[in-house]
Amino acid sequence: MTAKLFILGLGPGDPELMTVKAARILGSAPVVAFFAKRGRIGHARSIVDGQLREDAEELRFEYPFTTELPVEDPRYLAEMGAFYDDCAEQLAARLRAGQKIALLCEGDPFLYGSAMYLFDRLGAEHATEVVPGVAGMSGCWSRAGRPMTHGDDVLSVLPATLDEARLLERLQLCDAAVIMKVGRHLPKICRVLRGAGMFERAFYVERGTMAGERILRLSEREEGTAPYFSMVLVPGRQGAR
Amino acid sequence: MTAKLFILGLGPGDPELMTVKAARILGSAPVVAFFAKRGRIGHARSIVDGQLREDAEELRFEYPFTTELPVEDPRYLAEMGAFYDDCAEQLAARLRAGQKIALLCEGDPFLYGSAMYLFDRLGAEHATEVVPGVAGMSGCWSRAGRPMTHGDDVLSVLPATLDEARLLERLQLCDAAVIMKVGRHLPKICRVLRGAGMFERAFYVERGTMAGERILRLSEREEGTAPYFSMVLVPGRQGAR
Repeated sequence: MTAKLFILGLGPGDPELMTVKAARILGSAPVVAFFAKRGRIGHARSIVDGQLREDAEELRFEYPFTTELPVEDPRYLAEMGAFYDDCAEQLAARLRAGQKIALLCEGDPFLYGSAMYLFDRLGAEHATEVVPGVAGMSGCWSRAGRPMTHGDDVLSVLPATLDEARLLERLQLCDAAVIMKVGRHLPKICRVLRGAGMFERAFYVERGTMAGERILRLSEREEGTAPYFSMVLVPGRQGAR
Repeated sequence: MTAKLFILGLGPGDPELMTVKAARILGSAPVVAFFAKRGRIGHARSIVDGQLREDAEELRFEYPFTTELPVEDPRYLAEMGAFYDDCAEQLAARLRAGQKIALLCEGDPFLYGSAMYLFDRLGAEHATEVVPGVAGMSGCWSRAGRPMTHGDDVLSVLPATLDEARLLERLQLCDAAVIMKVGRHLPKICRVLRGAGMFERAFYVERGTMAGERILRLSEREEGTAPYFSMVLVPGRQGAR
């Protein structure tokens, strides 16, 4: 057995959308690590239910907070940094002991994944392999039946946390867009998409590929806050109907 | 058996990066269709070698041209349109006969995939399911070991065919970028990335996850034309080393 950290992309949520490679590594890893919010099983962990070695050691990394502390608060960066340091040290101890570790990630690990913060801390010193996964957005636009980018379309992936002017400026320079971190920003997103002439062709997807999936035109979405697993998709002009 | 068109994303090239779902559907499909360039096996077809039913009917859709005719030429649109019409009709005939079809796609089908043109023609009338795949770019940045987007980074996917001013304008409004369709545009890409202050952290990836893979800093890439399976990655600032 050789010490190695496998950072496994698990795809958008449907366990069958895991790669053959991730499934193979998962079935043989003696240590399985994953992030979870307080009081939750952990989304990545729930995707792999029933697929781990029976004797696998599970390392549950519970975030110290999620939205309680604003990102701008200096304590946020400090506390999250200390949290990731501690997670990395738990993994490093097992790597030094020669163990193989599967670190579970929703979607694709290097696209807005928490696992990047552990890769940043461990990648230089330890053998590491990143197994790419189907991105959450791919799962969503496939389920919505919306081809996103034809020909020379430009696609931008934008966090809804950007302010209105920045969002608008960026939307005006792309043909297709994915807006992540929707949460309480839904009214702003609608205003900005109207300004960019993209509102009519925008879709809202909640829990794409998972139980409780909801897909509708953004214009048909009720007002109010969106849950964590939601995004807004703007297909390029050719993908619009 | 129920007639259905499965549009299967096969991932970036390594057959193990196919999803469990794509592999399952592939192994039972009586009809398998794929695009190929003249004189080539077809990249998607080569990914699934040895995984099809022995008695599967294979439909090879050979592009009438690839780069011989410029996209601006009116004959390009007309001839490609007629080509896709013909492909769609071949699939429709089999769907009307009650057959299940697997249409093979490199990467993720709805991200710059030719299969979208068949979905556009068949999706409204026939039962269709899109199985998302690992995008080519995810395969590339995982192999390059470059976390792309941290926190609130904006990611843009840009075709290198855009003119210099448009490319620059868009690069200046994102943190991370993927530049596709590199081909003969490499000198322009380098100039524009220098202008945007992104050249030093850019990577060049050729045949990511496949045999003959090459990964190097863009600054170390020799001049000259790049092959089809190449892209330039600009990680967000936190992913740069």
